[in-house]
Amino acid sequence: MDETERTRGVVSQYFATMAAREWDAFGELLSADVVYEMPQTRERITGRTKYLQFNREYPGDWTATVTRLIVDRTTAAGSMNFTVGDEEMVGLVYLELADGLITRITDFWPEPYDPPTGREHLVEQVVSATDRIS
Amino acid sequence: MDETERTRGVVSQYFATMAAREWDAFGELLSADVVYEMPQTRERITGRTKYLQFNREYPGDWTATVTRLIVDRTTAAGSMNFTVGDEEMVGLVYLELADGLITRITDFWPEPYDPPTGREHLVEQVVSATDRIS
Repeated sequence: MDETERTRGVVSQYFATMAAREWDAFGELLSADVVYEMPQTRERITGRTKYLQFNREYPGDWTATVTRLIVDRTTAAGSMNFTVGDEEMVGLVYLELADGLITRITDFWPEPYDPPTGREHLVEQVVSATDRIS
Repeated sequence: MDETERTRGVVSQYFATMAAREWDAFGELLSADVVYEMPQTRERITGRTKYLQFNREYPGDWTATVTRLIVDRTTAAGSMNFTVGDEEMVGLVYLELADGLITRITDFWPEPYDPPTGREHLVEQVVSATDRIS
């Protein structure tokens, strides 16, 4: 199996075990020194133990659906539609692997904003899309 | 050349010609019916002509640096650090290709926000990172 397909298997399991809250199986995909980063808040979590605790403690009755998975040797990018109660969000994630384990995860949570003026002659407003941003 | 490497070449040129504002060469990478989407504002631009005009007219003295490029057959994901005047932003983009041309582009612009409380025992604050979010 080539490197890209090995990574695809691990990252697919990452999303599947997250969605199912199977945290023991989720943890087996992570390197002991995994780094989890959220650039928007400048937060970083270091190590499998803390990152697992972060996920176990994460509040809210959320569900997640993968909408994109792009895999390239030992890196991957994914996107997810999240629902937390009445709120719908999109999560964008970049992953890096070494020796078949996830070593770095970078998460982004883009929020809706009002479109700037001056480009109305070029754009149309979309009601629904792949990405669930409410 | 396999499909992934062909896509890598086209998408690399997409970012290079954008950064250089070489809009004619940039346009040659796009299908005539290319769709450009910004889910955060629910905006969509349809067609090479309008998308080129959007880029040519885009205001501000911006510079862009690619920080990630992940390519998988006919799809790709990238991230960029943007500087517009004093403002620093991160742009995240997903691309889809057919017959060696870009058919769909989805752009996200995640903004900084305050970290929620309750996870201080797990996180540290990062001063600098790959992703330039000021």
